[in-house]
Amino acid sequence: MAKMKAAIFVGPGRIVLDDKPIPDVGPLDALMRVTTTTICGTDVHILKGEYPVAKGLTIGHEPVGVIEKLGSAVQGFREGQRVIAGAITPSGWSNACLCGVGSQDGAGTPHGWKAMGGWKFGNTIDGCQAEYVLVPDAMANLAPVPDGLSDEQVLMCPDIMSTGFSGAESAGISIGDTVAVFAQGPIGLCATAGAKLSGASVVIGVDRLPERLRMATQMGADHVIDASQVDPIEEIMRLTGGRGVDVAIEALGTQATFEAGLRVLRPGGTLSSLGVYSTDLKIPLGAFAAGLGDHRIITTLCPGGKERMRRLMSVVEAGRVDLGAMVTHRYKLDDIEVAYELFSHQRDGVLKVAITP
Amino acid sequence: MAKMKAAIFVGPGRIVLDDKPIPDVGPLDALMRVTTTTICGTDVHILKGEYPVAKGLTIGHEPVGVIEKLGSAVQGFREGQRVIAGAITPSGWSNACLCGVGSQDGAGTPHGWKAMGGWKFGNTIDGCQAEYVLVPDAMANLAPVPDGLSDEQVLMCPDIMSTGFSGAESAGISIGDTVAVFAQGPIGLCATAGAKLSGASVVIGVDRLPERLRMATQMGADHVIDASQVDPIEEIMRLTGGRGVDVAIEALGTQATFEAGLRVLRPGGTLSSLGVYSTDLKIPLGAFAAGLGDHRIITTLCPGGKERMRRLMSVVEAGRVDLGAMVTHRYKLDDIEVAYELFSHQRDGVLKVAITP
Amino acid sequence: MAKMKAAIFVGPGRIVLDDKPIPDVGPLDALMRVTTTTICGTDVHILKGEYPVAKGLTIGHEPVGVIEKLGSAVQGFREGQRVIAGAITPSGWSNACLCGVGSQDGAGTPHGWKAMGGWKFGNTIDGCQAEYVLVPDAMANLAPVPDGLSDEQVLMCPDIMSTGFSGAESAGISIGDTVAVFAQGPIGLCATAGAKLSGASVVIGVDRLPERLRMATQMGADHVIDASQVDPIEEIMRLTGGRGVDVAIEALGTQATFEAGLRVLRPGGTLSSLGVYSTDLKIPLGAFAAGLGDHRIITTLCPGGKERMRRLMSVVEAGRVDLGAMVTHRYKLDDIEVAYELFSHQRDGVLKVAITP
Amino acid sequence: MAKMKAAIFVGPGRIVLDDKPIPDVGPLDALMRVTTTTICGTDVHILKGEYPVAKGLTIGHEPVGVIEKLGSAVQGFREGQRVIAGAITPSGWSNACLCGVGSQDGAGTPHGWKAMGGWKFGNTIDGCQAEYVLVPDAMANLAPVPDGLSDEQVLMCPDIMSTGFSGAESAGISIGDTVAVFAQGPIGLCATAGAKLSGASVVIGVDRLPERLRMATQMGADHVIDASQVDPIEEIMRLTGGRGVDVAIEALGTQATFEAGLRVLRPGGTLSSLGVYSTDLKIPLGAFAAGLGDHRIITTLCPGGKERMRRLMSVVEAGRVDLGAMVTHRYKLDDIEVAYELFSHQRDGVLKVAITP
Repeated sequence: MAKMKAAIFVGPGRIVLDDKPIPDVGPLDALMRVTTTTICGTDVHILKGEYPVAKGLTIGHEPVGVIEKLGSAVQGFREGQRVIAGAITPSGWSNACLCGVGSQDGAGTPHGWKAMGGWKFGNTIDGCQAEYVLVPDAMANLAPVPDGLSDEQVLMCPDIMSTGFSGAESAGISIGDTVAVFAQGPIGLCATAGAKLSGASVVIGVDRLPERLRMATQMGADHVIDASQVDPIEEIMRLTGGRGVDVAIEALGTQATFEAGLRVLRPGGTLSSLGVYSTDLKIPLGAFAAGLGDHRIITTLCPGGKERMRRLMSVVEAGRVDLGAMVTHRYKLDDIEVAYELFSHQRDGVLKVAITP
Repeated sequence: MAKMKAAIFVGPGRIVLDDKPIPDVGPLDALMRVTTTTICGTDVHILKGEYPVAKGLTIGHEPVGVIEKLGSAVQGFREGQRVIAGAITPSGWSNACLCGVGSQDGAGTPHGWKAMGGWKFGNTIDGCQAEYVLVPDAMANLAPVPDGLSDEQVLMCPDIMSTGFSGAESAGISIGDTVAVFAQGPIGLCATAGAKLSGASVVIGVDRLPERLRMATQMGADHVIDASQVDPIEEIMRLTGGRGVDVAIEALGTQATFEAGLRVLRPGGTLSSLGVYSTDLKIPLGAFAAGLGDHRIITTLCPGGKERMRRLMSVVEAGRVDLGAMVTHRYKLDDIEVAYELFSHQRDGVLKVAITP
Repeated sequence: MAKMKAAIFVGPGRIVLDDKPIPDVGPLDALMRVTTTTICGTDVHILKGEYPVAKGLTIGHEPVGVIEKLGSAVQGFREGQRVIAGAITPSGWSNACLCGVGSQDGAGTPHGWKAMGGWKFGNTIDGCQAEYVLVPDAMANLAPVPDGLSDEQVLMCPDIMSTGFSGAESAGISIGDTVAVFAQGPIGLCATAGAKLSGASVVIGVDRLPERLRMATQMGADHVIDASQVDPIEEIMRLTGGRGVDVAIEALGTQATFEAGLRVLRPGGTLSSLGVYSTDLKIPLGAFAAGLGDHRIITTLCPGGKERMRRLMSVVEAGRVDLGAMVTHRYKLDDIEVAYELFSHQRDGVLKVAITP
Repeated sequence: MAKMKAAIFVGPGRIVLDDKPIPDVGPLDALMRVTTTTICGTDVHILKGEYPVAKGLTIGHEPVGVIEKLGSAVQGFREGQRVIAGAITPSGWSNACLCGVGSQDGAGTPHGWKAMGGWKFGNTIDGCQAEYVLVPDAMANLAPVPDGLSDEQVLMCPDIMSTGFSGAESAGISIGDTVAVFAQGPIGLCATAGAKLSGASVVIGVDRLPERLRMATQMGADHVIDASQVDPIEEIMRLTGGRGVDVAIEALGTQATFEAGLRVLRPGGTLSSLGVYSTDLKIPLGAFAAGLGDHRIITTLCPGGKERMRRLMSVVEAGRVDLGAMVTHRYKLDDIEVAYELFSHQRDGVLKVAITP
């Protein structure tokens, strides 16, 4: 049985590179040879033992690569094709998928819904920080990379870009909206770009790190607020003349940013939440107008599937955003443990690392 | 100056009937002679001092009556016409109104938005538990009562029906949805009726009072759950085969019902919140899928304006709901203090009282 | 090779019952033993040669039956289970499906879209007027029938009910809307029921046959108009006080009904079109306000897939509509040529025929 | 009685500058001193007698100016303030307005709806090609111009920009959509900009004039097609790999462009129509998939009101579009007849003319 290298979760604090068999290809699967992948903040949660996955699982959910082998029932693709797959790989046929909510794909449950069930790579099945990755329900999930786009240009599509943009999309941003984005890590930066792309006239980026605020400006923020220097709530209310924002996007996953989002919303505004929380959340009574403010709080898990990937790549191809600048570091798969070390400690101004097997 | 009787907030614990001048009519106003009105749970909050209003204010926001006098700039109506006005009286011209969010009407603010600003009667201007009430922005707010409908038949339109139905509408209920409604007071009962009217195939009503559960069945609930006997979360998960509901409607304003709503939602489901809360709210991490469940939490303040009233009355006229059964008690305005005594203590199975000046 | 009986299109004017091999089951398929099916107006178009299909094709797209055999890759079902499948059988994995438009499923095309591509049964693959039918993409399309529902109770779900209801759904009917439905054949009757189920306060049914108008009343129409006696446009404008309707639903497929729908729309209204047209259509300039009326014309092809079927059956199970009354005649599959004869000439007040192999 | 100069419709072929009384100010009105205005294609229709207005009416519906006098009931503004008003001036209080469809404002009708009723300036009341214009329902319609924006920078907001952008907005353009815009006159150019601003990844502009195609590129078109050289339908199908576009925007008002829009739509796509038609329209059966293509045809009349104007000016202020380049010619009001002469014959590459009283 042929072997490959893979970054494996051994236990809290330990993701190691080790050998694994190259997986067999079922009728609906595709085997992808990974050419570039990256590390996500969620992978760091897994590393730290804060998000539980099975020991021995291969980590990683952002694959760019080449089709090595197609399952017997897969049609419409050819081996050797350059493709990506989303971090979320909906089956297409569960009840959740047929409702358009593939991220909550309940394939395998009696009723067809499962919270976060669409997230499989590096969560419930082996992921893509490896030489090869098996893509389930390949016909729904393989998305050919347009000629002329490099691996790094599409590396953000599977997760960061899809998630960040969804923060703007789920909020239903209209032309002329004022939007605040709390936290300017990779997701928040993409939310900033997505808000701008959706027609917002004013986007306000909030973070505590100067280099992230600089990048926020590059991604389209009209104003940036250094939360280590000023109170972002006061500053946003000042910038908006006391009105507040139409949409606040939460992109960190903390009580502080969630709450700040509510506190800067105009009545009738929308808080679009992208962060992964680790505690119960508190909704402050006043900011919530005691439940009478026509507010909306909307959460979104990264949308996946090949059509989503196609659309996001078309945005890159059209030159409407340039997320390439987010790749600040590059490593070979052999050095992925070093990459985790750097990324998990946010050293050296790291935003995203490109990993090449 | 002519006098009228009015139920006035004197201070916490005291709403008294007293004389007040009949108000002058400004150019955009209409003076309505009240023929029937009612007491709302919110009025009880005011009575108890839990919701602050100015001392001396006339209470009440659910008027049925006759146009006594029209402002000089008001066109399209005639004196003597039978009309209602919504509890919420949007100006029509503030920025919030022009965005379709008249309940957050900021007429008078620099930017045009104000939390709950559309609620004026018995909150920021004199209300309708009186012989006469001045309707602001009359052209946007006077709604003629169709011939053949009695006062009591349209008495729920200004608030209870508009609010309860909005719980179903804001949630975007689709044909075939399963919906749980937490609490079956007047608002919850209307939410039950509204969910059914919106195409839900299964509506589950939850309360602790047998007579309210009986009324829930009458309003269209397919299942009722007595929360004093069984755990409603377990029971709803059992009824739905472990799937949960597409939509939960909160109609009480407590942490317990808010939280239960989240706990019974399927991934991707919507919690539509109608209650007036008096404490900060907690979102439990697990039920919220750590922010990754594609959940939506939506609050709605009673929609107002003449077109809303027209539509609700057309529903009554078509016989699609019969809310008349909710009027359990009747009082003269002279006896309104007795009515408050009964209603605030929920004595004698009271749902709604009709007050006739 | 085992044989079965099937109604086969031989050429214009000729659908005959003949023997065919029972089909082989591919990995994603399911073989359904048909227990009840029916004839659709579209089948009559095929019979007459007005809609082209391949000679030798088995006709029919409304199957109720039992799973006889599952493909090797199909999970989540068991042989012997009672199921239906929609007239439209989306793959789940094409780009169209992943956009939520499975009726335009382009599985097999380079880009994933194909006009009407989701309609396969009796159009591009063998249909279900036969003893057995092969269901493609079975995991997306098999929908278990709830215990206690008879074949005839769910016989309308695959097409008539799904199509008719979609007329109301696509129009975005709101509580309190006034709706006119042009033509009260099986589709129009279901549109009438669907409009009512969506919260319309007034539904006006138009047809030329008294028995269909009677059935319209039974399905929830508040007013019926016999277009053979009065001008429906004038009558609808009279009924609505000159305002027109919020939504018009076209359910026949002719210029006259399409145009009448536009002529009775209020400004800003929606014409929801369900009919299959056989000529170019004309939009009259005046009724269209020269393009400045904020009108919407929306067409919908019957939504399919197992979740759609589950939802529709839940509506039947909840007793919210009773479409059983539409089954006016019953035939054995052996007598299907007689059934076609009756149905295609609309003899004997026929609405729908139940065919049992 | 003080006099002012105004461009008056005298009869087909004749708009002349003449003296008129400065209008009296009613309680809800504001008198605006016009500082800049422009001529619209619709004004040319009026000039030619193709669109009927009353003889003696002042023409023009795109005012930039200063508040000269406020009506007695108008609050929230001050005399001397720089403002614009939309071409469409909704009352805010009609039923149509309260449904969010102010362009079909039926203030004054029994039911509150009137086709195109929101368009008053230069149509049913005196317009703004004059030294002064009376703005009805001033509180709903006066929009202060942000400091730092010139008259010409906001001159497109009242009509061209609001209309063009609405073509993108009504279509519900999503991030990654492919959009074709038929005709690149002022409205089409704004539709091109609006599509880009809404997140389209590919916008294809079609026209027959090279200078308009150049401007289309400047406004964000990724591809331009010279319809005088190639067949735009074939070219768009080629550019999209046979798939067609998600959204087609019609911005001319002819059968040819309307039909072309349908012919390039993918199944499930939307034709967003902005043009003013002068003949009945034909929908070709094939392009319409016989009514089974899940197509949507949506018309939009220029949205108005102060909140719309505020939003559009915020887009200009944020530098997201620069429509200033569309002002190709400038005239004094005294020379407006010359301006009409130039504009109506589309001489000298004219796009928009600025008229300054």
